[in-house]
Amino acid sequence: MIEVGRKVWAIAEGYIPGQSVSQEHALVSHEAACMLNAGNEDAEVTITLFFTDRDPVGPYRVTVPARRTLHLRFNDLDDPAPVPRDTSYSAVIVSTVPIVVQHSRLDSRNPAISLLSTVAFPV
Amino acid sequence: MIEVGRKVWAIAEGYIPGQSVSQEHALVSHEAACMLNAGNEDAEVTITLFFTDRDPVGPYRVTVPARRTLHLRFNDLDDPAPVPRDTSYSAVIVSTVPIVVQHSRLDSRNPAISLLSTVAFPV
Amino acid sequence: MIEVGRKVWAIAEGYIPGQSVSQEHALVSHEAACMLNAGNEDAEVTITLFFTDRDPVGPYRVTVPARRTLHLRFNDLDDPAPVPRDTSYSAVIVSTVPIVVQHSRLDSRNPAISLLSTVAFPV
Amino acid sequence: MIEVGRKVWAIAEGYIPGQSVSQEHALVSHEAACMLNAGNEDAEVTITLFFTDRDPVGPYRVTVPARRTLHLRFNDLDDPAPVPRDTSYSAVIVSTVPIVVQHSRLDSRNPAISLLSTVAFPV
Repeated sequence: MIEVGRKVWAIAEGYIPGQSVSQEHALVSHEAACMLNAGNEDAEVTITLFFTDRDPVGPYRVTVPARRTLHLRFNDLDDPAPVPRDTSYSAVIVSTVPIVVQHSRLDSRNPAISLLSTVAFPV
Repeated sequence: MIEVGRKVWAIAEGYIPGQSVSQEHALVSHEAACMLNAGNEDAEVTITLFFTDRDPVGPYRVTVPARRTLHLRFNDLDDPAPVPRDTSYSAVIVSTVPIVVQHSRLDSRNPAISLLSTVAFPV
Repeated sequence: MIEVGRKVWAIAEGYIPGQSVSQEHALVSHEAACMLNAGNEDAEVTITLFFTDRDPVGPYRVTVPARRTLHLRFNDLDDPAPVPRDTSYSAVIVSTVPIVVQHSRLDSRNPAISLLSTVAFPV
Repeated sequence: MIEVGRKVWAIAEGYIPGQSVSQEHALVSHEAACMLNAGNEDAEVTITLFFTDRDPVGPYRVTVPARRTLHLRFNDLDDPAPVPRDTSYSAVIVSTVPIVVQHSRLDSRNPAISLLSTVAFPV
């Protein structure tokens, strides 16, 4: 199989709204990194978060198994520290094997939810 | 004519909301892969879907004729199996000739529909 | 000055909703190709539209002057033919000098307008 | 550390809506350039704005410190001149060291806010 993806990705615009119109899992305000590992080896992934006025936090560690996808919510990260809400951040994602990373946000501060999604920047 | 596009594309973030505020075709919650074949040869396209906790499903097969565009709804795929709703997935798209692929979602769980669109990742 | 951009761009997902909640120019449903010419020579741009079940239409011709930006609404194209509403299409954009192209849609079928924007695919 | 990003970026589609449903900082209509500097040297960044029918304006100058992110609102730029509202513009961003740039808009003309975000075009 051909290699699908890159080993380093960057997401410049991170922001988890602190408010949600609903606490239902699908509709709570959240950000996610959707990571596709189309290859035959597990991907060991480390995530580092960057902030405006303090040192980077990380690494967060996660595995994306071979031939699987993982839609990871930044809301769920808590080791070494939870991701602060209502705070601008960026993320650098490094994988042991090529993956594809897409970034999305569901903003439900408003009853009319708003979505955005972009392919992360491949380094 | 110059070649427009690539032969392999990846969409990391797939998700078809199971709810829709309307069953009107244009407004039902859906995801689409918009595929442009600007060349003079038909594109034979195969799509493989990746999931969180089970093996990939596919290939789905579709033709994009020469000098045509195809806005394919993932909702309409059913061979070898329909795409589950409310379920995270990813897609790898392989074409016999260069094409351009864009991914979009219309989320109409809410009366205020929400749209997103990204160019897929060219491999 | 360094060259900013590419000479060929593709937009796979085109669709102008036929309905608008308002006929105010800023809020009518529309699609635009935002073209930046950061260089010192005028850009002569030709646009070809591709459809699902008929031959391509074009070229549409437009000039983006040196050191200017042009936010061109597809709604306003009419030579050689207007762009049909509620119809899937794609576009290939060719320029005599490097430009940067971004594609956007404002969908105001619903009182809660929805926006999307993506950088076009650079060929 | 590997270099993350590029030194020149372009945003073709700029537009700050002049209306906002709320004057709350988080919800006022705005555009931002989110700039990640994952390296160990400060990034000295200059921004030039391009318009439809007048000469470019700039440079605007800003620093993104080493290992920090800066989510810069175009609304806040005022030297050499504020960014006009309800006006199409484009931006070219040049940095002394590699950075990653993402562009976003929050449109709150409507009570149902609408978001968009794209990775800027890396030159």
